Amino acid sequence: MKNDDFRRSGHQFVDWIADYFENIEKYPVRSRVGPGEIKALVPAVPPARGEAMDVLFRDFERIVMPGISHWQHPGWFAYFPANNSPASVLGELLAAGLGAQGMVWETSPAATELEEVVMDWLRQMIGLPAGFSGVIQDTASTATLCSLLAARERATGFETNESGFSAPLAVYASEEAHSSVVKGVKIAGFGRKNLRRIPTDGRFALVPEKLEEALARDREAGLVPACVVATVGTTSSGAIDPLRPVGEICRRHGLWLHVDAAWAGTAALLPEKRWILDGAELADSLVFNPHKWMLTNFDCSAHFVKDPAALVRALEVHPEYLRTGVDAKVRNLRDWGIQLGRRFRALKLWFVVRGYGVEGLQAMVREHLRLAALVRDWVEADARFELLAPAELGLVCFRLNDGRDEDALNELNKRFLDRVNAAGPVYLTHTTLRGKFTVRLAVGQRTTGERHVRGAWDIVTAAAAEVLAA
Amino acid sequence: MKNDDFRRSGHQFVDWIADYFENIEKYPVRSRVGPGEIKALVPAVPPARGEAMDVLFRDFERIVMPGISHWQHPGWFAYFPANNSPASVLGELLAAGLGAQGMVWETSPAATELEEVVMDWLRQMIGLPAGFSGVIQDTASTATLCSLLAARERATGFETNESGFSAPLAVYASEEAHSSVVKGVKIAGFGRKNLRRIPTDGRFALVPEKLEEALARDREAGLVPACVVATVGTTSSGAIDPLRPVGEICRRHGLWLHVDAAWAGTAALLPEKRWILDGAELADSLVFNPHKWMLTNFDCSAHFVKDPAALVRALEVHPEYLRTGVDAKVRNLRDWGIQLGRRFRALKLWFVVRGYGVEGLQAMVREHLRLAALVRDWVEADARFELLAPAELGLVCFRLNDGRDEDALNELNKRFLDRVNAAGPVYLTHTTLRGKFTVRLAVGQRTTGERHVRGAWDIVTAAAAEVLAA
Repeated sequence: MKNDDFRRSGHQFVDWIADYFENIEKYPVRSRVGPGEIKALVPAVPPARGEAMDVLFRDFERIVMPGISHWQHPGWFAYFPANNSPASVLGELLAAGLGAQGMVWETSPAATELEEVVMDWLRQMIGLPAGFSGVIQDTASTATLCSLLAARERATGFETNESGFSAPLAVYASEEAHSSVVKGVKIAGFGRKNLRRIPTDGRFALVPEKLEEALARDREAGLVPACVVATVGTTSSGAIDPLRPVGEICRRHGLWLHVDAAWAGTAALLPEKRWILDGAELADSLVFNPHKWMLTNFDCSAHFVKDPAALVRALEVHPEYLRTGVDAKVRNLRDWGIQLGRRFRALKLWFVVRGYGVEGLQAMVREHLRLAALVRDWVEADARFELLAPAELGLVCFRLNDGRDEDALNELNKRFLDRVNAAGPVYLTHTTLRGKFTVRLAVGQRTTGERHVRGAWDIVTAAAAEVLAA
Repeated sequence: MKNDDFRRSGHQFVDWIADYFENIEKYPVRSRVGPGEIKALVPAVPPARGEAMDVLFRDFERIVMPGISHWQHPGWFAYFPANNSPASVLGELLAAGLGAQGMVWETSPAATELEEVVMDWLRQMIGLPAGFSGVIQDTASTATLCSLLAARERATGFETNESGFSAPLAVYASEEAHSSVVKGVKIAGFGRKNLRRIPTDGRFALVPEKLEEALARDREAGLVPACVVATVGTTSSGAIDPLRPVGEICRRHGLWLHVDAAWAGTAALLPEKRWILDGAELADSLVFNPHKWMLTNFDCSAHFVKDPAALVRALEVHPEYLRTGVDAKVRNLRDWGIQLGRRFRALKLWFVVRGYGVEGLQAMVREHLRLAALVRDWVEADARFELLAPAELGLVCFRLNDGRDEDALNELNKRFLDRVNAAGPVYLTHTTLRGKFTVRLAVGQRTTGERHVRGAWDIVTAAAAEVLAA
């Protein structure tokens, strides 16, 4: 491919993305294709000869686009958001062009040092005290795994790395904690049965007394507690575990406290919401995802640790071929995570924070919270609906409830959600809360405005009327 | 940021990247900044107000660019290549614009299905038999970790995930295997002391008989062998472990065989080099990195597994909020790796394979091998140099040797390498082979041509003359 062809196609693609952002509401949010439909359109063998970018682009539009669910659509209320932004896409573009790899400082000092500074910006932006060092991980799953590994090593005097897992170590998280905690516990060798799921209160938040009880029981039984994972903003309901009492328990017992604020951490940009992280200074590590709700392209997960030496000691390897002359003077971020290779992700994050400014990001989050509160109020004002969780942040959990029995309600609400998603302009997903099939509506796309949540509510109420009448 | 600003900056950045590709030889390959220099240029606090993209771009040029080591420079002979290409950058751009997340099939069916098909193209392209399923991981470190986890679970009847690590399991790899194997062994809880480093022969390849002996010793001692990691193209010397005898041993002992062909796998695109994977059909998994030597932006690591059910069983989690109505009919790739979230990496890979065609990619690799062979011949023809490894692929390992003692030779060669890298137009790195400080010259950048290796050799011989005369 000639450089001039790159220029031409590049300009075309930039315009295509700008048009896409402008016209995205013309697409149904969730892809309409069925299993196997995309695969059937792609030849089973690779082409021998190179093809022109125009041909590839036509196939992109013909084959790929029908199979895309539009995460950037203002009607995306599913899962959690993964919002991008023009500034972030431009940062990703430059990073891709440079193709620089930040595995060690020397292989691109700017990648390492910009990451260090911008991560410290984020620390300040969410009100985390000085003394936490930040590193970009790909996802919160990886950040949580890394914290579990550091906790494992600290609990065993760094012996597990050397001699293998032996002591029965236990990990604690609420029954509402994310599946990535289970996955991390399996990967790190703790074993799923040594993950204690601590009961939650009426707001789905971890009950500190129940944590104390579990710790006492385990110590009695000869298990060694190693780590507590507290969640700020659970996936199923947005519940906020009380960090201060949990942190005090961890201090007392010498446990690593990891805070999973993957989605909700961004809300702490707002002074009026910073209470969600009250007590975070007691934590050993915390993760939140700028790639969810802070306009930064996936992937970009912000992982803060109080004792990076423990993290590094848990993960470092020192082969000769990775040594450089400045190792004693610099951070080599390969030792801060699972992977050796590292993309230059700080660039897009720098563009986002500078492009929007702290106030610009705050304004976006504040508006999303206002819109979610509107939806919550509509749910509460309509007798056909039942609000199933407090909805303090950008997530509203609800269901239809006309008094039929629980099994029938679950069936009804499944039909209701399918009906909502069949319309096209919105995409909502579900969870279960205490066994109840729960519809989730998460507000967080960059372009989602009041018009869109009003439109969503029209679709929701129309679907409700239909399934209740059926 | 307005959409029109995005168009304007996007066009500007596309042109900047095209110019960068054209003018890259004006930069020194390795950044000249010292520790802390970049950090000092970035304000310690984030901006309150958003800034214009023009301001950001000026800072990108002023602050970031001096801190970039130019991986795309034709004089990049360091580490291994991480070459990108216009087609790949364009694919990354579109993927960033879409901002689609392929954690489950439904969240963008095209991301999952295109990945499945294009990974099968790669399987065919390197001559791996049908029956291997492919998935894109971020790095070979992650792929190797996933294989170790699947091996761990298979060796314990999937009990480690449930009950935690208990049996002392052992892993086997050559003494020349990559540090990511050590890291994976630590993360997965095997313990570093249960990683057996098997001796290598005169070509730095694993000696199958020594593997047999280690297995017998461990079984005798009550350890349970779980996994063998064979390397095709070691980092220090490009050595090729003999897959067929190793695979036969693994079959006999019921061991998981993982093949780390991270760098050299791309050479198997060439029929005349396919012998390097002879016996790969006996493997349980194999990884190679299109983001190293196959023109695909980092990250994109191709991970093939023969029994994906074992991998998925080792890694799956099934929270209600991730269930979809089609789970029984589709692949949900979140269960094929560590992370939940997944970028749409198949798009750039599709663009690369179609943009160059198999023949185009073969031509590039063939030319790199020809150039590396030139360097090898020059090393062998010059009595001041000693070739330290066979150099069968794109990596040449050598040193100065004027007969002084080994410690003095190591010192001499360190000075020699520093002198080479001080020049600017080339960047080479080092390793040790049997305790000898070894200079590595890896040919693999997209634009590296004969002019560049001749220029590199001029710098090498000039530096040699200088340090030998000093």
